[in-house]
Amino acid sequence: MTTLLQTIDRIRPLCAESMEAARSRQDVLTKPKGSLGRLEALSVQLAGIQRTARPVIRDKVILTMAGDHGVVAEGVALYPKEVTVQQVLNFQRGGGGVNVLGRHAGARVVLVDMGVDHDFEPMEGLQIRKVARGTLSMLKGRAMTREQAVQAVENGIAAVYEEAAKGMDILGTGEMGIGNTTPSTAIACAVTGVAVPLATGRGAGLTDEGLKRKIEVIEQALALHRPDPKDGIDVLSKVGGFEIGGIAGAILGAASLGIPVVVDGFISTAGALIAALLCPRAKAYMIFSHKSVEIGHEHMFDFLEADPLLDLGLRLGEGTGAALAISIVEAAAKILNEMATFESAGVSGPLDSEGVVDEG
Amino acid sequence: MTTLLQTIDRIRPLCAESMEAARSRQDVLTKPKGSLGRLEALSVQLAGIQRTARPVIRDKVILTMAGDHGVVAEGVALYPKEVTVQQVLNFQRGGGGVNVLGRHAGARVVLVDMGVDHDFEPMEGLQIRKVARGTLSMLKGRAMTREQAVQAVENGIAAVYEEAAKGMDILGTGEMGIGNTTPSTAIACAVTGVAVPLATGRGAGLTDEGLKRKIEVIEQALALHRPDPKDGIDVLSKVGGFEIGGIAGAILGAASLGIPVVVDGFISTAGALIAALLCPRAKAYMIFSHKSVEIGHEHMFDFLEADPLLDLGLRLGEGTGAALAISIVEAAAKILNEMATFESAGVSGPLDSEGVVDEG
Repeated sequence: MTTLLQTIDRIRPLCAESMEAARSRQDVLTKPKGSLGRLEALSVQLAGIQRTARPVIRDKVILTMAGDHGVVAEGVALYPKEVTVQQVLNFQRGGGGVNVLGRHAGARVVLVDMGVDHDFEPMEGLQIRKVARGTLSMLKGRAMTREQAVQAVENGIAAVYEEAAKGMDILGTGEMGIGNTTPSTAIACAVTGVAVPLATGRGAGLTDEGLKRKIEVIEQALALHRPDPKDGIDVLSKVGGFEIGGIAGAILGAASLGIPVVVDGFISTAGALIAALLCPRAKAYMIFSHKSVEIGHEHMFDFLEADPLLDLGLRLGEGTGAALAISIVEAAAKILNEMATFESAGVSGPLDSEGVVDEG
Repeated sequence: MTTLLQTIDRIRPLCAESMEAARSRQDVLTKPKGSLGRLEALSVQLAGIQRTARPVIRDKVILTMAGDHGVVAEGVALYPKEVTVQQVLNFQRGGGGVNVLGRHAGARVVLVDMGVDHDFEPMEGLQIRKVARGTLSMLKGRAMTREQAVQAVENGIAAVYEEAAKGMDILGTGEMGIGNTTPSTAIACAVTGVAVPLATGRGAGLTDEGLKRKIEVIEQALALHRPDPKDGIDVLSKVGGFEIGGIAGAILGAASLGIPVVVDGFISTAGALIAALLCPRAKAYMIFSHKSVEIGHEHMFDFLEADPLLDLGLRLGEGTGAALAISIVEAAAKILNEMATFESAGVSGPLDSEGVVDEG
């Protein structure tokens, strides 16, 4: 718990002075004020996070956290559990969606075994930070002990610290874990209070029958455990997953280092909910990449008061949405750094009410 | 008119066979079917446009077309007219928003003088295809003659052909022209039939008074000219602009060469409306980059049955939205080409209704 508490303690509010300086610069770049919309807002947020008027995004990292889920035995997933291992190996060879989009964004993709039911050989691009070989079924008891939940978050922090030492100006989250929309939905309902049927989607593509079963399982688990919606560790331990805890930790770790975090999709946002419960200040470091097809996502955004950047009908996870959004965030930083000003370019400003160029 | 008619004649329906092949490949990549949403749909569209199952995006070009507008004299613009020239020079030096985002996307930005009220020296990265030194005010008469309208479209075609000869796998449109939301709004209203106040926005940032004046000007011009909503050249000549005609031509030219076109914002979409009137088949080659803050944009999309990729509160134009979207379109092509298949990666498929891995 010491690592977690120290990390939270290091997370500062954003630097208001740097944000003000970035905002002022946006207003003198050769464009109508505010005309680059969210790119302008992102550049100001980055300034506050990096504590400089001229934030720069060079080293981009996507951490794809993997874990298995005991709840898969209850028939809530479309794919067999062994796909978690198979996909981690596919990602390690560069063949996954996150690899393709990560390369496109110029980001390095690092895999983290947070709790896969398999013993991986040491290999390049994989951190082994296993808490256990999969969670237990949330129908049978807690998914993990409270100690394991803290361990998962702390392992996520350690994963970020290891990569940050190699260079990291921005972090994208991602995950792989067959069945993990079920714990994510349970977290969404536990934290936001939304009714389970309103927040439960088809994951990888469940049938009507599968969806009904998934709703039942989540409702039963929540009735059994009654997680405390104010206690992130309680929620995570009762209905969460190791990779979700890892994501929460990665977010807190990055925030403690002054690194912006692009949160991927539905499962990553469940991790962001846990992080926000553990440290509300960390929310200022989060950038939400996209709105997933999963219907529960919107309820999470309402709770977090977040507005995702993209809406492209994605529901793959892995970090694919984060990869796309990282490129947009990088573009925002470049606008602030590379555009000419009205003065440097010799471009006239707007007309005043008399139709005269306003030099103010 | 011969060039225009020949170009239209060369625009073919998309290749259904290539689209089917791309769709089939998407279904065997290591992800749940459909889970990359619009990226998958884009890859299928690209396959149909490039007439190959494996479309590739390498050479990316943004054509930023510039023109001046006589209607600026009626008090419809926030910035003085000379900003058109100043910004073209700023772009030529690489200091504009489109330059920054074009570089970020790896696209070359080429400027086209379609009708700026200035005689540019020949310079690198600028094509001079001037129809005239600005349009006339649409309140005084037609913005341009019918012959000039055809010339503008044909000059846009020529601009694309010149750049395509150097390599072009995708085209992004863009523009610069102080006052050009006024002709664009007039085109939107003329073509879609929407009432002027419902489609008129603040452009670069008009006051309430300026907005009222802009609405009056557009209403008067439409009442004066009664453009034929089925005749793209009539609409363009009465209430259009040279750069808008150039954009329409660029779209038709690219489509005739089997090149996908990423349409930028509000003004570019006005060009797309003209192109669609001249050749409805060209619509299949268009990808709409983003939804602008300009309120008329949505009415254009309804008419074109189009769904823009991004919604980032942009209203700068130049090709900035196209640059961001080109990167997403390129990502879509890479997904199709670079992701592993279930078979190549040794990843199991979904379970059937008995919970057995479905090998079919």
